[in-house]
Amino acid sequence: MATVRESKSQKDRKPREERDDRYEIRLSGSGGHGVILACVMLAQAVGLNHRKNVVQTQSYGPEARGGASRADAVISSSEIFYPKTMKLDVLLAFTQEACDKYYSDLKPGGLLIVDSTLVTKVPIKNSYGFPFIRLAREKVGHPMVANVIALGVIAELTGIVSREAMRTVVKARAPKGTEEKNLKALQVGFDLGKKMKR
Amino acid sequence: MATVRESKSQKDRKPREERDDRYEIRLSGSGGHGVILACVMLAQAVGLNHRKNVVQTQSYGPEARGGASRADAVISSSEIFYPKTMKLDVLLAFTQEACDKYYSDLKPGGLLIVDSTLVTKVPIKNSYGFPFIRLAREKVGHPMVANVIALGVIAELTGIVSREAMRTVVKARAPKGTEEKNLKALQVGFDLGKKMKR
Repeated sequence: MATVRESKSQKDRKPREERDDRYEIRLSGSGGHGVILACVMLAQAVGLNHRKNVVQTQSYGPEARGGASRADAVISSSEIFYPKTMKLDVLLAFTQEACDKYYSDLKPGGLLIVDSTLVTKVPIKNSYGFPFIRLAREKVGHPMVANVIALGVIAELTGIVSREAMRTVVKARAPKGTEEKNLKALQVGFDLGKKMKR
Repeated sequence: MATVRESKSQKDRKPREERDDRYEIRLSGSGGHGVILACVMLAQAVGLNHRKNVVQTQSYGPEARGGASRADAVISSSEIFYPKTMKLDVLLAFTQEACDKYYSDLKPGGLLIVDSTLVTKVPIKNSYGFPFIRLAREKVGHPMVANVIALGVIAELTGIVSREAMRTVVKARAPKGTEEKNLKALQVGFDLGKKMKR
């Protein structure tokens, strides 16, 4: 209840986490893209292995219906009083619908990452496109790990989470028997991200 | 930002969702109990199949460290401005540690559901105990589906979500090849809950 109860003088100031290093990420796509699991893994990796607080959220209901699926994470060194995203630092979109629906939530200069096969109309200039689903099929032999490739790219491009932390969580959360494929997918993502940074 | 920006007169009133039917659920246990996946499924079932808004949340970070794992869902007919739980209507605890840590977050008269094998010291009178993990092993042949048995119990005891909606989501989210086991676990939960209601 902190945000509701704060005094008038506090009310005029930005929430504490906004003043320092609040960082917001949204992963979006449609049903089968595994964006919720990916966001759970990302949040857990950041939260357990770094001195950060993370709140990971998904919303359902009449307003959230339709084909687009999304999951959000808010990261901050301070306590997170307001866990809803306000202006995204990073948006991942697996589909054109998700991209169209959410890109306006990106802050100026925010990072847009899309599946370049499925998102052909990119609404802003500074974006990164990768054929995640095709790469998952061709490099790992399984289209379902496209979400983990994307996690590797996000980790590498943003630096918000270490490779080691991501590996630990992906290995622990992968369905039994798929650990190696998921770790391979993560490495594909790290490599893609690293190449882009140069 | 609604809660932060509301005017003074609004500030003195309870948030809108509190005034009507805000309903808060926490699922807790330790790492392997699958409480996050269970909460994602519960939230999705409530949100997609009923005229409700649901925000599903998990937090990570220094304060959240230790053995206990938890996932929260807030359900309301109104827009959910404040997605953090304040007073729980339902708490599920798979471990003694989780029970000890969270039972004080239950509202008076709130529903405490525990794994009766693992939680032997129950701090309040009105609680329900079920040997979820033993039942998962004995009735479904797989201890990993204890979380889905618990979902069935919660659905049945609270009435917040229909059996049909739960079945649809559990079937869709179960790892490939485990759909039947998960649906069986859900039915075990429905039956347990129904028996308790009598």
